[in-house]
Amino acid sequence: MSYTHTITVPLDWAEAVERTREALAGQGFGILTEINVRATFEKKLGTGAADAVGDYVILGACNPELASKALAAEPDLGALLPCNVVVRRGTDEAVTTIQAIDPQTMVQLSGSPAVREVADDADTRLRAALAELNGTGPSSAQ
Amino acid sequence: MSYTHTITVPLDWAEAVERTREALAGQGFGILTEINVRATFEKKLGTGAADAVGDYVILGACNPELASKALAAEPDLGALLPCNVVVRRGTDEAVTTIQAIDPQTMVQLSGSPAVREVADDADTRLRAALAELNGTGPSSAQ
Repeated sequence: MSYTHTITVPLDWAEAVERTREALAGQGFGILTEINVRATFEKKLGTGAADAVGDYVILGACNPELASKALAAEPDLGALLPCNVVVRRGTDEAVTTIQAIDPQTMVQLSGSPAVREVADDADTRLRAALAELNGTGPSSAQ
Repeated sequence: MSYTHTITVPLDWAEAVERTREALAGQGFGILTEINVRATFEKKLGTGAADAVGDYVILGACNPELASKALAAEPDLGALLPCNVVVRRGTDEAVTTIQAIDPQTMVQLSGSPAVREVADDADTRLRAALAELNGTGPSSAQ
């Protein structure tokens, strides 16, 4: 199975990151963590590894209400949180790739009915954020 | 399947968090992210939700060499990184629970042989960190 929902957008990387934040906020997700993978590799492994991965950020998105429900149902589930959203672009790529974790992976790994309910809600919200970024959601209609 | 490796330790929560950091560092993992779930819930949802979840942190552990290999093999894999390690303790619990994500979940979701190799390495390191915390690893022998 694919474990992400993926789109590509005709935006430069920095603008794509900014718009991704906004689209996630519009769906009730706060960004609790942010890993600049390129910068981390540059610092720890050097320029070669940084250039190889390209512009690459992992945003950790969390809807507190959903997370609270999920952890009440299954305290272990923090090991699968927050919902990661990757925004990346290699140096030779004309478009930026945006990939949200597919929350159904949580259902696959957990099996709990309560987790399924929360994952379905998170899935709907993440898909809506990507649809907006893809120009097929609410914003593009305005 | 279980998606975590889990131990309980007879330590208070803050000390368990500190020792978990040290054990992960000893296995080559840096902590790139840290989510204090209790504090986040307190701020966003109020005291009831914070008390319900208890002391709860999600540490995002990353070994840069392994992450670089994994992303070279499968650029999408950032959606499953970093390796989360949960340290949690409910108010009525006598012990602290430490749970590392089982990296085999990445293998299950990805299927890539290169990801399997990296996941096996990460798995060995996470298990070693937990063994040390559990008093059965290198530190306890000293």
